[in-house]
Amino acid sequence: MIGYLKGQILSLSEDSVLILVNGVGYEVNCAPVAVSALEEGQETALYIAESISPYDGTVLYGFLTKEDKQLWAIFKTSIPNTGAKKALEYLNKALRSVADFHNAIVKKDPKILTGIFGFTAKTAEKLIHSLDGKMDAVTIAGVPKIKIEGEAPFMSEVMMALTALGYSPMEARKAIDQLYKTGLANDSVENIIRAALRILKK
Amino acid sequence: MIGYLKGQILSLSEDSVLILVNGVGYEVNCAPVAVSALEEGQETALYIAESISPYDGTVLYGFLTKEDKQLWAIFKTSIPNTGAKKALEYLNKALRSVADFHNAIVKKDPKILTGIFGFTAKTAEKLIHSLDGKMDAVTIAGVPKIKIEGEAPFMSEVMMALTALGYSPMEARKAIDQLYKTGLANDSVENIIRAALRILKK
Amino acid sequence: MIGYLKGQILSLSEDSVLILVNGVGYEVNCAPVAVSALEEGQETALYIAESISPYDGTVLYGFLTKEDKQLWAIFKTSIPNTGAKKALEYLNKALRSVADFHNAIVKKDPKILTGIFGFTAKTAEKLIHSLDGKMDAVTIAGVPKIKIEGEAPFMSEVMMALTALGYSPMEARKAIDQLYKTGLANDSVENIIRAALRILKK
Amino acid sequence: MIGYLKGQILSLSEDSVLILVNGVGYEVNCAPVAVSALEEGQETALYIAESISPYDGTVLYGFLTKEDKQLWAIFKTSIPNTGAKKALEYLNKALRSVADFHNAIVKKDPKILTGIFGFTAKTAEKLIHSLDGKMDAVTIAGVPKIKIEGEAPFMSEVMMALTALGYSPMEARKAIDQLYKTGLANDSVENIIRAALRILKK
Repeated sequence: MIGYLKGQILSLSEDSVLILVNGVGYEVNCAPVAVSALEEGQETALYIAESISPYDGTVLYGFLTKEDKQLWAIFKTSIPNTGAKKALEYLNKALRSVADFHNAIVKKDPKILTGIFGFTAKTAEKLIHSLDGKMDAVTIAGVPKIKIEGEAPFMSEVMMALTALGYSPMEARKAIDQLYKTGLANDSVENIIRAALRILKK
Repeated sequence: MIGYLKGQILSLSEDSVLILVNGVGYEVNCAPVAVSALEEGQETALYIAESISPYDGTVLYGFLTKEDKQLWAIFKTSIPNTGAKKALEYLNKALRSVADFHNAIVKKDPKILTGIFGFTAKTAEKLIHSLDGKMDAVTIAGVPKIKIEGEAPFMSEVMMALTALGYSPMEARKAIDQLYKTGLANDSVENIIRAALRILKK
Repeated sequence: MIGYLKGQILSLSEDSVLILVNGVGYEVNCAPVAVSALEEGQETALYIAESISPYDGTVLYGFLTKEDKQLWAIFKTSIPNTGAKKALEYLNKALRSVADFHNAIVKKDPKILTGIFGFTAKTAEKLIHSLDGKMDAVTIAGVPKIKIEGEAPFMSEVMMALTALGYSPMEARKAIDQLYKTGLANDSVENIIRAALRILKK
Repeated sequence: MIGYLKGQILSLSEDSVLILVNGVGYEVNCAPVAVSALEEGQETALYIAESISPYDGTVLYGFLTKEDKQLWAIFKTSIPNTGAKKALEYLNKALRSVADFHNAIVKKDPKILTGIFGFTAKTAEKLIHSLDGKMDAVTIAGVPKIKIEGEAPFMSEVMMALTALGYSPMEARKAIDQLYKTGLANDSVENIIRAALRILKK
């Protein structure tokens, strides 16, 4: 029934927000990476999906963009044994770089999923198998629209550069993890490699 | 519980709209023909019916007029094995010309249903049988009110004219389909026949 | 969850209203006598009770006053085999004169219930038995408050006067029915008797 | 779905409030001690929790602070056979002095629970056993935050002082009960002892 909420952020927890819309505060589950982009008091809008359970009633899931909501819906419907919460966890990882995630699924390359996103090998295989041909279904008014327009699949390049310089995939990924935490992972490939090297040389 | 929503159209898809009402965006399933009469950003009001399912919770169905909602309700309750979504499909076709649809049911004439609305012969019989005597129940404050006041059952006349001029029912209907798509099907009988002939002579 | 709605009456049917509250139109079932006190376009407030059904979801019942809602709740919980809709029917009759209704229950006098309210003898017995001692539970902030303050149990007096003048209970009740329909039943006992006699002498 | 409501108090009953939020009046169950802190007509905000039942639909529970809501949630999930209503009863007692309640659980001291809060010995044992190590989980943005900051566990001191002066625990608790009713229980330890002695000497 509810597909969108526009209001003020009352409070944030690690994986949910309380958004005040005309006097009613809605509890909305969000991916941690989405929560980190929000601030208390901020006016914002979330695309909403509902999950119904006989015990919890209507539970809301929120997304910063329509594409994120569509990806979440694809994960929920395509990946076996994946409910609303689990799909949000997959989305939280995929949002690191939708381009790389999409690239890994299209190329059926589990190493990208384990290397950049930290999935286990078993989960990587499951994702590749169940999302095969599904991710292009993310369309906005008929136009295929996964966030790869502005985003070249660059995280793979960063990984290749670091491993070519002798660092192990594990070391490279830890450096990338840290860059995501400090918000430095949205820069050009060169700058990200330089920033990663500074971390690795400490 | 909810019977009406008044707000701004946030987005449209082929068979649903997202309508923003005081900060809450409601997802509403609509007949494609109704969606085509709406525009993003437009302030509008929809008559709403609810359908409850244990998995999807409360699902909203929207209609541009009270009569459309009443027709949908009649389809849903009178036609066997017809849930909310299926009733919307029937409504979408009937809205081509409620007058002709009503005329076909009253006269128990399956050819109108197959000719103008593209129903199969089997479905046409089912509609005639299950809607017998039901469509006059559409009343507004006691007055029987199916949209036949302004609309003479004219689509039948267009069909008769075109078939009299030697075109097969199939050809005639395809021309009429095209007129509906271009919005030219709401004119006088003569103009519609001229427009249909221009299409048929291409 | 919802206990009150304040907004504008969008439309009325015999036993329901559509009330617009900040862009959302709520469908509310009401006693016909309550609907007759409302007008389209009017700003009003209704006390609301919810009835939940797996097929219809949340169905709203509306009342002009807190006492009416409490009476409805007593009927629903005390009278056997009485759901929300049936309780509304009982309320609709009782609202003719809550004082007389309460008087009939307290005095265990089925003749008042059959005479004034048109209940069958069987239903009258069921009401007297199941509502015994229950109607005084209508309290507002601790004070027993059935609408008998302003209303002396006068309909009984009108009935006694008419039957004393030789009219049968059936004739007397028909006259009273007519007075209720024309809204003349909210006057002094004397005026009501005079109005009833004018009807009976036609 | 709903976690917060901000509006005007329409009416109060012993254990619930009707709060009007933009034309919709929400029925919210509250602890009596919370209701006593509210007034009709007052603008206020409540932290809300939902309880879903197939017969009553969505039932709302309201709390004056986030901590009260978290305590209620801990009682509901940790204490065996405790639903939403029962947890509210426990909360209502605990709110007399969260510091003392927390102190009793941490020290596993049933006498505080029976003495100050009037729990039975059996319930006291059940609370100590099931809440062991659970009450510190009340955290606000990572900081353990039970309302003991401003509140030293002083009610125990008042009890000890009164019993040291020869009054039985039962007499002492009755005096404290009365102080809570008159709202005098939020003062310094000395003043509370003096007020309690005035009551006991009557």
